Amino acid sequence: MIIVMKTGATVEQVEEVAKRLTDEGLKIHLSQGVEKTLMGAIGDRQRIKSLDLEALPWVEKVVPILAPYKLVSREFHPEDTIIRVGGQEIGGKTVHIMAGPCAVESREQILETAAVVRESGATFLRGGAFKPRTSPYSFQGLEEEGLRYMAEAREKTGLLVVTEVIDARDVGLVADYADVLQIGARNMQNFILLKEVAKCGKPVLLKRGPSATLEEWMMAAEYIMDGGNYQVMFCERGIRTFESYTRNTLDLSMVPALHTLSHLPVIIDPSHGTGKWHLVHPMAKAALAAGADGLIVEVHPQPEKAVSDGKQSLTPEKFQRMMADLGRLAPALDRELGSVSQSVG
Amino acid sequence: MIIVMKTGATVEQVEEVAKRLTDEGLKIHLSQGVEKTLMGAIGDRQRIKSLDLEALPWVEKVVPILAPYKLVSREFHPEDTIIRVGGQEIGGKTVHIMAGPCAVESREQILETAAVVRESGATFLRGGAFKPRTSPYSFQGLEEEGLRYMAEAREKTGLLVVTEVIDARDVGLVADYADVLQIGARNMQNFILLKEVAKCGKPVLLKRGPSATLEEWMMAAEYIMDGGNYQVMFCERGIRTFESYTRNTLDLSMVPALHTLSHLPVIIDPSHGTGKWHLVHPMAKAALAAGADGLIVEVHPQPEKAVSDGKQSLTPEKFQRMMADLGRLAPALDRELGSVSQSVG
Amino acid sequence: MIIVMKTGATVEQVEEVAKRLTDEGLKIHLSQGVEKTLMGAIGDRQRIKSLDLEALPWVEKVVPILAPYKLVSREFHPEDTIIRVGGQEIGGKTVHIMAGPCAVESREQILETAAVVRESGATFLRGGAFKPRTSPYSFQGLEEEGLRYMAEAREKTGLLVVTEVIDARDVGLVADYADVLQIGARNMQNFILLKEVAKCGKPVLLKRGPSATLEEWMMAAEYIMDGGNYQVMFCERGIRTFESYTRNTLDLSMVPALHTLSHLPVIIDPSHGTGKWHLVHPMAKAALAAGADGLIVEVHPQPEKAVSDGKQSLTPEKFQRMMADLGRLAPALDRELGSVSQSVG
Amino acid sequence: MIIVMKTGATVEQVEEVAKRLTDEGLKIHLSQGVEKTLMGAIGDRQRIKSLDLEALPWVEKVVPILAPYKLVSREFHPEDTIIRVGGQEIGGKTVHIMAGPCAVESREQILETAAVVRESGATFLRGGAFKPRTSPYSFQGLEEEGLRYMAEAREKTGLLVVTEVIDARDVGLVADYADVLQIGARNMQNFILLKEVAKCGKPVLLKRGPSATLEEWMMAAEYIMDGGNYQVMFCERGIRTFESYTRNTLDLSMVPALHTLSHLPVIIDPSHGTGKWHLVHPMAKAALAAGADGLIVEVHPQPEKAVSDGKQSLTPEKFQRMMADLGRLAPALDRELGSVSQSVG
Repeated sequence: MIIVMKTGATVEQVEEVAKRLTDEGLKIHLSQGVEKTLMGAIGDRQRIKSLDLEALPWVEKVVPILAPYKLVSREFHPEDTIIRVGGQEIGGKTVHIMAGPCAVESREQILETAAVVRESGATFLRGGAFKPRTSPYSFQGLEEEGLRYMAEAREKTGLLVVTEVIDARDVGLVADYADVLQIGARNMQNFILLKEVAKCGKPVLLKRGPSATLEEWMMAAEYIMDGGNYQVMFCERGIRTFESYTRNTLDLSMVPALHTLSHLPVIIDPSHGTGKWHLVHPMAKAALAAGADGLIVEVHPQPEKAVSDGKQSLTPEKFQRMMADLGRLAPALDRELGSVSQSVG
Repeated sequence: MIIVMKTGATVEQVEEVAKRLTDEGLKIHLSQGVEKTLMGAIGDRQRIKSLDLEALPWVEKVVPILAPYKLVSREFHPEDTIIRVGGQEIGGKTVHIMAGPCAVESREQILETAAVVRESGATFLRGGAFKPRTSPYSFQGLEEEGLRYMAEAREKTGLLVVTEVIDARDVGLVADYADVLQIGARNMQNFILLKEVAKCGKPVLLKRGPSATLEEWMMAAEYIMDGGNYQVMFCERGIRTFESYTRNTLDLSMVPALHTLSHLPVIIDPSHGTGKWHLVHPMAKAALAAGADGLIVEVHPQPEKAVSDGKQSLTPEKFQRMMADLGRLAPALDRELGSVSQSVG
Repeated sequence: MIIVMKTGATVEQVEEVAKRLTDEGLKIHLSQGVEKTLMGAIGDRQRIKSLDLEALPWVEKVVPILAPYKLVSREFHPEDTIIRVGGQEIGGKTVHIMAGPCAVESREQILETAAVVRESGATFLRGGAFKPRTSPYSFQGLEEEGLRYMAEAREKTGLLVVTEVIDARDVGLVADYADVLQIGARNMQNFILLKEVAKCGKPVLLKRGPSATLEEWMMAAEYIMDGGNYQVMFCERGIRTFESYTRNTLDLSMVPALHTLSHLPVIIDPSHGTGKWHLVHPMAKAALAAGADGLIVEVHPQPEKAVSDGKQSLTPEKFQRMMADLGRLAPALDRELGSVSQSVG
Repeated sequence: MIIVMKTGATVEQVEEVAKRLTDEGLKIHLSQGVEKTLMGAIGDRQRIKSLDLEALPWVEKVVPILAPYKLVSREFHPEDTIIRVGGQEIGGKTVHIMAGPCAVESREQILETAAVVRESGATFLRGGAFKPRTSPYSFQGLEEEGLRYMAEAREKTGLLVVTEVIDARDVGLVADYADVLQIGARNMQNFILLKEVAKCGKPVLLKRGPSATLEEWMMAAEYIMDGGNYQVMFCERGIRTFESYTRNTLDLSMVPALHTLSHLPVIIDPSHGTGKWHLVHPMAKAALAAGADGLIVEVHPQPEKAVSDGKQSLTPEKFQRMMADLGRLAPALDRELGSVSQSVG
């Protein structure tokens, strides 16, 4: 941590800051420039964090040097984390495609969708049973019934199930049915929910909040890891900017950025990331080329009848064409698409 | 709702859209321009919402005409809502100042702060007992112990208590102690929590999410009102932008905007809204002049020893100077500052 | 400047960085932490700036300590700058209201508007003769003819003239007619134009770019001051954010922020800052309370017939009501509104 | 255009709006809903634009239906535009890599860089002779001398030259030396400069402003085309968001969005788009996969000695590795990298 004193700070003021730091057991280096006095403080990072020196009127600013996260950092875990779930590996050479409708609407809809996305090469089935809706008047999900239909689809297709949990009280229930628990973008900083999924024993797909910085996102993952669950994957789904042609601005640079700073896998959601079905296919290819470890894509048998997000959902035919293109692309990137190995009844 | 067809849409495609709408019981008006075909659809707003026509490839865009909210809208409730709590009225001529530390740290700290802010003219005591912290390694709050200290401070000073609830399971507990429940910025779209506070019987202070649009914010209030709790006040606390000198960008235009679109009171938080104590005083004056119904301000007896947010907290002396300035300003705006009428033991 | 080395940087790599710095004549302090090696570099700020050390793979980041601006900084000029123009003073106790139409449309329109805004208490007449329009098909301004009408309005009313210059080749022409030259938001970083107005001998009103940071804005002012023109005033007119109810997000916190960091006056434009006429009045009051040294407001005799920006323009009646309210507010803020002292023919 | 009247608008107010529209020769359709009255107006799009109906107090909002651009639109020009310059074609199957230093620093530097980037497969040499710098104290470019060095590099390597023009007075000079004129991000809405390059007879690479919407960007291109120059290519270089790990947020979704809405080629700048050299390579691959027609990349023989942007510049070795990867990727996307056909002396 570097403390920059205001121009004109007196010797006494500098000494008071120094005393506060040494009282906390920190070692300090004083550096007297022509215009500014700086102080470097070295020691336990938690102790440093708890000092709020910028509250002092003669301190101009405090510059943190160490990142606030630890467990998610590649510095502490240089090798890539591979998440193993239901016979699949996420984070290695294989790229996984997670596909399905925004919301589980009926047994027929989810079984039909599961069959067609598996046919095209998906390895995970996505679908919302609990829906966080911005309007109280919108469809709120089939809840446990929806989870049962997804579990049935897993039985029939071998696809693994990824689904969102929105209430800390439901984590156990969702974990009973799902293979991967999703934390939605609006809940990225719902710390109560993060602490609960930390205890659930299932891998977590952590979506980025629509205005979360990279550091805040990593800190949210740190919450889950600090709670004992090391199977976390990041999911970029677009951030909120002034651009309104797209629903969000899909920030693909997070793929290489996270691969640099962290050891955890990175999944891309081009459906929410763009909000328009005709942009999903090209952005899925771009995500793969950027190095994503997986994609999560909305597919609906009849998008125009979907209860939500129809305008960003692919039809089964468009999904199949996208998968064909991704299949051509993967070898040129030294990656391969996943497949469902398990034989299905 | 207006449906804009793509240039070149065929008669059959236009008719298919028309059929979908009339099948839902909507009346339609067709409008054939030189370049575009438009269709206006009139009828029940919930039915219209559930059609996802932009999923159709020959529909260019769908333009909603009616706002998605109802109960929060001034169109449905032309008079200002006055929230009555503990003998105070929020939303009328009186401006309320809510003041106190970011976090309740100890009995002494909260009692001392309560006494000094009351002395300077505050009518509500703020303070966090449950803290949503971005780092799992930061202080997480005194929890129920903190609530008890705040209740004791109310006994001693007559100040009403506003405090945040972060877990749906704690709503009953917090409502037992607090006069107003705060929904924090990160929880503005935690719909589980919104539904729970809708049932608590206490007024709710709903902070704006750091990247929430005005419409999403109003929809979050709609959730609470739709759940049966009509005592909602908005609290603007700054939005996330590219500007980094300030912690957030305090969007004071929301005060007149909300007063136009809604009947609910609007509170301003210049502490989180700027993140720097020296900006709090001028922005508090600006908020009052913009028409705010109240302010919520961080005050700490020793900001540089605060466990959080010290750099945006006022000392008691600075708070007193701010209150003096607000007291001079209010009459020129036809407002008056609130006061604690109740005699205290 | 602080250089943070990557974890694991070798002694040789640290020494190479040190050598680069000392070769440039800088003094360095080495600080070896448990996890990171830091280096502080002290010396001439231009020499430090020209080193691009983050290009080195083993440097994690470079943290600048000194601000990149000098002439605009309050550290170098502790007293407020008062700009004296045509008998008026901007930057002292007096608050100036600059009012007029977005575009000069005709002689009648500008003379009529000038008369009414002067009547209500404005001291400057605003109006665009050269219009930077986002569409090539929009009205581009009356050019020199417009300047002549404004000069005529000055003759008749005593109002001073502020108008925008958009082409470096027109600076001399505009300076012949105007009292204050405006640099529009889109030209804030048009360095060619900045260099030209630096030589014009007239005060400059420098609008903030729609996505300019505070530091970039101050650097744009530095360009003008470095070119020899010290009569610069800042003008905040809203920044671009995700919020779309307002045209821009008016960032009033820039008023106290600039008054802290700089000695130059700050003007607020609530018309562009909100884009809606019904928000202009409350935000004008808020700007005054935040400490603004002036306001620039769009007024049009018939807003619904304006060639541009009608929806954010006040009618003369609404302007008069706003001025009355500002007049009541100013004394409670120890300010006073300006007035046209000069007797007019 | 759809005009939405406020709830409670009287018959007289509706009729007044109708009259204004019919007076302008527009045909109107009236649509009376349960809660709102709407009016559709059909006719010449320029006439509609010039009416500022939102200035009327009883008009709630005006919803434009037609896009404000024409010449850039794919609706008016369904086939892709191919830009032919110096024997190369931009906008077809071939992807062009434009590479070189941020600034031309010396004859040796530019000749050396040209040789190595051509060796690796670039077809265009980039380099700034006129530099728009945020600080007046930074290096401002070699100006005409820099242009001469670039022209010499073209002679020696066969690479075509793309370079920025920042002053309307220099357009002729730059066009004498360059093959493609670049409009920098900060000048995207410098309409004076746009009008000048419209007359220069050379293709224009139009960078997106850091906070420009897609529509504003297309309108800037419309300026150039309306001025008679149809050889325009878009260049996405990142937008400004709250994320600060990257210098900008590279918005790759603009590639398919522009290919949908427009017929003009799209180039991506991953160097400015990320600001960090280690993100350039993966984002270049992503850009290619998203469908970009070219890339513009900063390469410097010794990035740590560059006068600007060293931290986002690739070394020749890193550039070569990136080109090898792009070469592998292109066939899987049915694209091919360009090559310099001309034999060089």
